[in-house]
Amino acid sequence: MEKFNFTEYFKEKIEAVEETLIQFFPESEGYAKRVIEAAKYSVHAGGKRLRPILCLVSCEIVGGDWRDVLLFAAGIECIHTYSLIHDDLPAMDDDDFRRGKPSCHKAFDEATAILAGDGLQALAFEFFTHPSQVKRVSKTRLIKAIYKIAKAIGFEGMVGGQMADLLMEGQEGNTKILKWIHTHKTVKLIEASVVSGALLGGGDVKQVKALTSYGRHLGLAFQIVDDLLDVIGDEKKLGKRVGSDQKKQKLTYPSLVGLEKTRQLAEESIKRAISALSYFGSEAEPLRLLANFVLNRVY
Amino acid sequence: MEKFNFTEYFKEKIEAVEETLIQFFPESEGYAKRVIEAAKYSVHAGGKRLRPILCLVSCEIVGGDWRDVLLFAAGIECIHTYSLIHDDLPAMDDDDFRRGKPSCHKAFDEATAILAGDGLQALAFEFFTHPSQVKRVSKTRLIKAIYKIAKAIGFEGMVGGQMADLLMEGQEGNTKILKWIHTHKTVKLIEASVVSGALLGGGDVKQVKALTSYGRHLGLAFQIVDDLLDVIGDEKKLGKRVGSDQKKQKLTYPSLVGLEKTRQLAEESIKRAISALSYFGSEAEPLRLLANFVLNRVY
Repeated sequence: MEKFNFTEYFKEKIEAVEETLIQFFPESEGYAKRVIEAAKYSVHAGGKRLRPILCLVSCEIVGGDWRDVLLFAAGIECIHTYSLIHDDLPAMDDDDFRRGKPSCHKAFDEATAILAGDGLQALAFEFFTHPSQVKRVSKTRLIKAIYKIAKAIGFEGMVGGQMADLLMEGQEGNTKILKWIHTHKTVKLIEASVVSGALLGGGDVKQVKALTSYGRHLGLAFQIVDDLLDVIGDEKKLGKRVGSDQKKQKLTYPSLVGLEKTRQLAEESIKRAISALSYFGSEAEPLRLLANFVLNRVY
Repeated sequence: MEKFNFTEYFKEKIEAVEETLIQFFPESEGYAKRVIEAAKYSVHAGGKRLRPILCLVSCEIVGGDWRDVLLFAAGIECIHTYSLIHDDLPAMDDDDFRRGKPSCHKAFDEATAILAGDGLQALAFEFFTHPSQVKRVSKTRLIKAIYKIAKAIGFEGMVGGQMADLLMEGQEGNTKILKWIHTHKTVKLIEASVVSGALLGGGDVKQVKALTSYGRHLGLAFQIVDDLLDVIGDEKKLGKRVGSDQKKQKLTYPSLVGLEKTRQLAEESIKRAISALSYFGSEAEPLRLLANFVLNRVY
């Protein structure tokens, strides 16, 4: 498989996302300074910006200008960051490290971390409906995209998945339950990131459908690879301890079907993601590279 | 002052809000059942529905049909409920009771309560952009209303206020800081509830301005009265222990300026709220009654 440097390849877009996250972030001042600093700490803790990039690239592929959805994409990253902050809390996954740095509640404290997450979720919807975002896209499509994201991260999406993930700790599970958890906890937001970009970029029904399929399979592969990395990954590269899933008795693919079969499943999902792109021509190349990149993390 | 039964007077609207919250709430089923049940538990724990009522009445006063903003109003109640669930968490205000019932993390557990709050915030934005809501109002105004709410509950609103409130525990404060905390923690969402109703109902600039002023002063009075009730209130009626602010060394008006002066400040705010309604005629009567009701809680 071809060598692909995500950060290098999407440099311009990643930089634009970083800039947007800085430019539109509330000032760290006043009596609530601490919570804004905590949120900034986590937003700038070294995330790859995969989800906002998916949104921008998807917008571009259907013929839109990716610069027109920068605030929307930045909002998606705020949601992703909020979910990580809350996942790491002592009452949840109780992780002290994230991307090699103390997690938010360790660097600050629990109350501040809860509030930082809450504020980041609100900030996402503020970005989505910010006048600078609104004037650049169709209002009908903007509302649809917000609806997609809101559903993807709620009880029937990310929050539901996280709940099931916690409830299944130490329980006997099967691949049906695990797929449900992965789909809700991780896949739906990744899928919604791709779909929102396609909607905002003016994509037609067929384009949106193809990209929905791409997003779903990519998201599944992403989570399967995440499970794998927790077993075979490099602690330094990951910035967190490996083996934590096993320690917490999390339901994962390696624990259910073994490493070899898990690798196969990841490969199958990536193949499906790439085949969903057949509707597009060479303009979908960035998404193909990205799919291979997700898989290559485990090689 | 006239006798006013909030629940009786707004019976039809309150019932419609309750019905909307039931009809559009996700089903308690599947692997994430627990978190949806926890959210439902708190949503139906006996709240007065003040904020959604403010939204509905405000919509009506500017000439809109309150039935057209029911989902929006129900979404505001989801946000309010999420904020109460998170406020009660051990890491935050650590309250075991809310409205006479065990708070969410006591009835369920901490992780479930964190997730229930997170999911309710997402659900609010799902309601705001739900197809059944979208088709009933102007899209431009809907996006503006969502933006207002998102700003009101984020770092520069409710979340910031809650952070400052926690940071000021046991600290020496003054009325300037306290007003900042109250404004951010409580007032901005109440104000945004009124303003969103006015925007969605088709209110013009002058109407929205007058109702913004009403909402701000009503919100201030509401929080001042809340401070008072924690000192002089009836535990049975409140459904929670009185004296908890003092125990936690919270910054409150009674602690800073005494009971008599606090009463005066509440009365002044209510007067200002009512005088902001002078722009309207008798159609603003429900908001006048509501303002007096907020004050009468302490008599």
